[in-house]
Amino acid sequence: MMLKNQRIMCGLGLAALALACAAPAHSAQAPASGHSGLVLTGQDVASMRAEIARPGRFQREFQERKAQVDRQLGLPILVPVPRDAGGGYTHEIHKNNAQLMYDAGVVYQLTGEKRYAHLVRDMLAKYADLYPTLPLHPQRRPDSVISAGRLFWQNLNESVWLVYAIQAYDAVLPVLAEGERRHIEKGILRPVALFLSEGSPHTFNTIHNHATWATSAVGMTGYVLGEREWVERALYGLDKSGKGGFLRQLDELFSPDGYYTEGPYYQRYALLPFVTFAKAIAVNEPGRKIFSYRDGILLKAVDTTIQLSYNQRFFPINDAIKDKGIDTIELVHGVAIAYSASGDPRLLDIARRQERVLLTGDGMRVAQALDAGRAQPYRFDSRVFRDGAGGKEGGLVVMREQDQALVFKATAQGMGHGHFDKLNWLFYDNGAEVVSDYGAARFLNVEAKFGGRYLPENKTYANQTIAHNTLVVGETSHYGGKLGVAEKHHPELLYFAERDGLKISAARVEHAYPGVAFVRTMAQLRHEKLAHPLVLDVLTVQSDQPQQLDLPLQYKGHLIKTNFELDSATTALAPLGKHHGYQYLWLKASGAAAAPLNQVTWLNDNGRFYTLSTASLPGMKTLFTQIGANDPNFNLRNENAFILRLPAAREAVFVSVLEPHGGHDPVSEVTRDGNSQVKQIRHLRSGDVDAVHLALANGLEWLLLLNNSAGYKEGQASRIRVDGREHVFQGRFQLVPLGGQVGSAMKGKP
Amino acid sequence: MMLKNQRIMCGLGLAALALACAAPAHSAQAPASGHSGLVLTGQDVASMRAEIARPGRFQREFQERKAQVDRQLGLPILVPVPRDAGGGYTHEIHKNNAQLMYDAGVVYQLTGEKRYAHLVRDMLAKYADLYPTLPLHPQRRPDSVISAGRLFWQNLNESVWLVYAIQAYDAVLPVLAEGERRHIEKGILRPVALFLSEGSPHTFNTIHNHATWATSAVGMTGYVLGEREWVERALYGLDKSGKGGFLRQLDELFSPDGYYTEGPYYQRYALLPFVTFAKAIAVNEPGRKIFSYRDGILLKAVDTTIQLSYNQRFFPINDAIKDKGIDTIELVHGVAIAYSASGDPRLLDIARRQERVLLTGDGMRVAQALDAGRAQPYRFDSRVFRDGAGGKEGGLVVMREQDQALVFKATAQGMGHGHFDKLNWLFYDNGAEVVSDYGAARFLNVEAKFGGRYLPENKTYANQTIAHNTLVVGETSHYGGKLGVAEKHHPELLYFAERDGLKISAARVEHAYPGVAFVRTMAQLRHEKLAHPLVLDVLTVQSDQPQQLDLPLQYKGHLIKTNFELDSATTALAPLGKHHGYQYLWLKASGAAAAPLNQVTWLNDNGRFYTLSTASLPGMKTLFTQIGANDPNFNLRNENAFILRLPAAREAVFVSVLEPHGGHDPVSEVTRDGNSQVKQIRHLRSGDVDAVHLALANGLEWLLLLNNSAGYKEGQASRIRVDGREHVFQGRFQLVPLGGQVGSAMKGKP
Repeated sequence: MMLKNQRIMCGLGLAALALACAAPAHSAQAPASGHSGLVLTGQDVASMRAEIARPGRFQREFQERKAQVDRQLGLPILVPVPRDAGGGYTHEIHKNNAQLMYDAGVVYQLTGEKRYAHLVRDMLAKYADLYPTLPLHPQRRPDSVISAGRLFWQNLNESVWLVYAIQAYDAVLPVLAEGERRHIEKGILRPVALFLSEGSPHTFNTIHNHATWATSAVGMTGYVLGEREWVERALYGLDKSGKGGFLRQLDELFSPDGYYTEGPYYQRYALLPFVTFAKAIAVNEPGRKIFSYRDGILLKAVDTTIQLSYNQRFFPINDAIKDKGIDTIELVHGVAIAYSASGDPRLLDIARRQERVLLTGDGMRVAQALDAGRAQPYRFDSRVFRDGAGGKEGGLVVMREQDQALVFKATAQGMGHGHFDKLNWLFYDNGAEVVSDYGAARFLNVEAKFGGRYLPENKTYANQTIAHNTLVVGETSHYGGKLGVAEKHHPELLYFAERDGLKISAARVEHAYPGVAFVRTMAQLRHEKLAHPLVLDVLTVQSDQPQQLDLPLQYKGHLIKTNFELDSATTALAPLGKHHGYQYLWLKASGAAAAPLNQVTWLNDNGRFYTLSTASLPGMKTLFTQIGANDPNFNLRNENAFILRLPAAREAVFVSVLEPHGGHDPVSEVTRDGNSQVKQIRHLRSGDVDAVHLALANGLEWLLLLNNSAGYKEGQASRIRVDGREHVFQGRFQLVPLGGQVGSAMKGKP
Repeated sequence: MMLKNQRIMCGLGLAALALACAAPAHSAQAPASGHSGLVLTGQDVASMRAEIARPGRFQREFQERKAQVDRQLGLPILVPVPRDAGGGYTHEIHKNNAQLMYDAGVVYQLTGEKRYAHLVRDMLAKYADLYPTLPLHPQRRPDSVISAGRLFWQNLNESVWLVYAIQAYDAVLPVLAEGERRHIEKGILRPVALFLSEGSPHTFNTIHNHATWATSAVGMTGYVLGEREWVERALYGLDKSGKGGFLRQLDELFSPDGYYTEGPYYQRYALLPFVTFAKAIAVNEPGRKIFSYRDGILLKAVDTTIQLSYNQRFFPINDAIKDKGIDTIELVHGVAIAYSASGDPRLLDIARRQERVLLTGDGMRVAQALDAGRAQPYRFDSRVFRDGAGGKEGGLVVMREQDQALVFKATAQGMGHGHFDKLNWLFYDNGAEVVSDYGAARFLNVEAKFGGRYLPENKTYANQTIAHNTLVVGETSHYGGKLGVAEKHHPELLYFAERDGLKISAARVEHAYPGVAFVRTMAQLRHEKLAHPLVLDVLTVQSDQPQQLDLPLQYKGHLIKTNFELDSATTALAPLGKHHGYQYLWLKASGAAAAPLNQVTWLNDNGRFYTLSTASLPGMKTLFTQIGANDPNFNLRNENAFILRLPAAREAVFVSVLEPHGGHDPVSEVTRDGNSQVKQIRHLRSGDVDAVHLALANGLEWLLLLNNSAGYKEGQASRIRVDGREHVFQGRFQLVPLGGQVGSAMKGKP
């Protein structure tokens, strides 16, 4: 009870008193202020009270929140016996209760009006009556790795509940009589904390976001109840060995670049307990310098979450609901806490786009800075986000030019929410998705759609390789679609570089299929004579036997034309295949490749045309598909793709250029440049070296030389003879301007 | 040459001179000012010159336009020999030349800088060299009703060209030497005007928007060249009998409510020449009081065009590109001229949404009023827009509540661009299309898609009844899909009324099918206990023999659930039918109706759920379709519909309720009210009276009583016994609240 005894309990009825409380307290380990020591300092509370009297963002947010709480004040307090799974009645009630208590606690701190504190007190008292009587939740899954809760069907939700509830309790402590405190702590707070730690050792000790919620809940409860032992367990695992616990999670769940292995959608979700508990640690034990831990990994994680977005939405790799983006509440917390810790004014640019602020000291600092116009433009970078705790398990490469973003997914599997899509890519332009990822097959919380959980089609379609934009061999997903196998491997990211208007990256995959290796090089090429940068894609496949190779591209928009004859299925449709996601695809049309250049053009809703030009390969076909077969309940979106197919190949190099061009504005009735500029794409290979020759109708011409060999040694010279001329280059690649642009091609804008 | 001689030619090099020119000229018939007498007054020019010196909307617009013209100043003037059809090279050049001359003329007037006038002069001189050498256009359609042009493949474009060119000529007259004038007038302006009038009598005299462009072009040229005879022909037809010409077009093309029979998409298009020529008439012959003509029909037409929109876009009935809306340039002209004529500050609200202003005196007045903050909210009304010159050929009914719009299409056919969809309906809610119309099958100006013209599928699919939301008998379109037949008939609009929270309208159709009559009642019902108003749809069909009745609904969103078993086509798809549009529909699933209530729920992208609840009829099935069969070139959008089908019925009453409910926010993960509130829908009939009983889960309950009989007499009493109680009502309908709400139901907000 040491921490608790160090607290100064001071009422919040008067701002002056609160200010008096703001004076530093006993020791360095003690909270810096009065009772509200969990994530707020007394100084914060005093400032916030002043701030709500001043017109501005913070005042508006406070008034809205207070009005919401006010609407609940007169209503009966419902604490039903748990019965329903996620999305059901009792689930939603308990979830909403936690939020309401949190909000009421905040409003109490800001107004000092006891009725808000009494709402928290009365609700917690009801929980204290109920909780000791509860067995494990009736909807738990005994045969699942998902651990059961008591208030909720899984203990994850119970952890989330406690993260909010303990903050609410902390906020209203001053108004509670000793007996009330005893009842609440004994009946609900202690039993939940013990259930989540000692009672759920598997969840608590694992290295997973469920454990982050559990350790955060328990650790924060430890601070408030003065249970230093609980804080230690939260930080170092149940046995305090450091093999589990919050710090180990910080060590292992993020790469050195702050990338979370499940991808940005779950990174956002995991972020909230990370930053909230970290804030509590910073307030209660500033000596731990938690925000400096592992070279500032938490601030890196917040920044990386932001970086992994386009037009406000997260890149929807792996299981991801595509609507989620930087305005999600988790990132509102992340940005506020990170801004408070770092003072980086570029974070304010993100806070501005979030259009809401937190009612915390950190939120106030954000609101004040925004009101004062201190935001500076946030810069979205082109860079690698390494994957793996050591940063050596591949990575996510993001290249940006103008209003484009090219995402090259050379990451590890990303645990159970990972998709089987090694070396997949996504492309955004002019505000829109152009080459897309299905994301997760799920209608979040829509009861009629499989209870709002992941649909069965998430595993059978959305996770499969064919749902992405990367190589499928023999109509089978990478690693056979087996998580256990996939987790043993990861791509080798060969390099990312940026030079002379060219951004380029390459990665190799060797174990996705037995006897098959493939290397993909993706590049973004800018030139002053190009209205829009081009995307180059060179995919080299080597197989120890002839196999069917499919290279799908999920395009967003309306098919405008192909430069080859389409054989369309006009009076009957059939599924393309039988398994690994192929069973969901209607085959709408196919066509033998146009040689030497195969072109497909579509028109995106953003009003721009896109053409994929591919150097034709012998026997290549293009298949057009639409999702919808074997989907009796209309669970999937009917999205379109085309697939470049080689029926039986041992070695193949798919070389394509994606070219944004022209525009179609139906309002002004202006349409221009509906035709591709790509005139020629050739591929040559000599030894370890690939040469791609690209020529455009406007006279621009390049050779892109690549050495992606496994045996490549740093700095070695490579050579290849093209059209009678020998080219020698050092490093992995070289871009050689040809024709009229020699000597001028490299003048691309910086 | 009378008019010409009355002009005062005064240079525009100095604003003071321009002001001097603004003094009234000779006679009442003369332009009110100096040379710029066609659509601008000298006073306007002087004011505009002052205005561009002042920061504001007008100055910004001027600077942008001037910068655009400046970019063209140094470039060679291209006046190629006509060769290409619409969208092709020479077509676009000549089209853009007209716009450039117009812009340069405006900039000359505002700056007095002669280089702008010289651009117009030099370009017109080139046209004067070329035009006399031209035969009819090589791409003309000899076998078509579309009349050939010489500069363009159809003379419509030639009329448009002249409307712009004559304004440009008028603007630069002062700087032209007498010889230059002679050359230009003789070489191009006179020959084009004569070609469009005497040379194209069919187009010129017809009552159609092509004739509006032709008469406007010729009439405006008459004013500038002083050819009073041409003005008379433009106003009264070639023979000046009044059987054709601009005034006759005003009499016949618009209904008394300002509704244009082709619908808002073409109403917008037709508007530009109407208001532009009218403006020229008002300036040159104010005594004609053209804006008061036919009770102010032109101002009504502008207002009606605005009214027929939702969320800025026009209702896409008939052939319509769905992107078009109130920000189109034609309506920018319409609003500016209408505001100038009426001073109605609510038009400024629309001008504000258009985000651009015209560089004319009218545009200046709009800009000044907007800068001064004088805009008042524009009100979108619930009302009938009668169709037909006499207002007796049915009409378009629009009902609005909250953020809903319900459109009930009981109009006449609307000529060649009309669709075969009598008593079709559309529904918008919360900013989005919910029950939709395909609009036109066309990729405007996208060369690869049938030259950017209407696709063949426009006739074979988009025009057909099954592409809409109304009754199809025997898989055949209304009037057999024959325009000549359809134009002989129109629906009878029985009534539109608004009372006690209920908006309601009914219409009857008798000749769409031999031996079949159908009556549809559509209503929008508001109640304080309903979060969103409901849509009621009562469709009564009487046939002289049993036939298949289909009632399709084109829904926008993702199918969430049905309350009946779906038999889905999971491994093979086939087209639903063979003709009248059915051949384009894949049949994805079907199900026998759930009795007594058949429900289909979908989730719109606007985040709201929609359920259509229908009182089941014996043998009813629900079919789910998707567009895409028999579409080898991917010309159509793959949109979804469901069809309520009765395989063989003589009499049927389809009673449905469309209910917006709940919400799904994937960002905050909140989903609520995913289930319909509709508990019961019953239909009873006695004599001429229909009774619909609607009961909701929240206890609300109504009887809607209807008398839609052909023999109905104004004010007669109708009676029907329902559940043992007799109801007597006067008029066409009565809404009777039942159950707990008796006496309170009518308290809906005004």
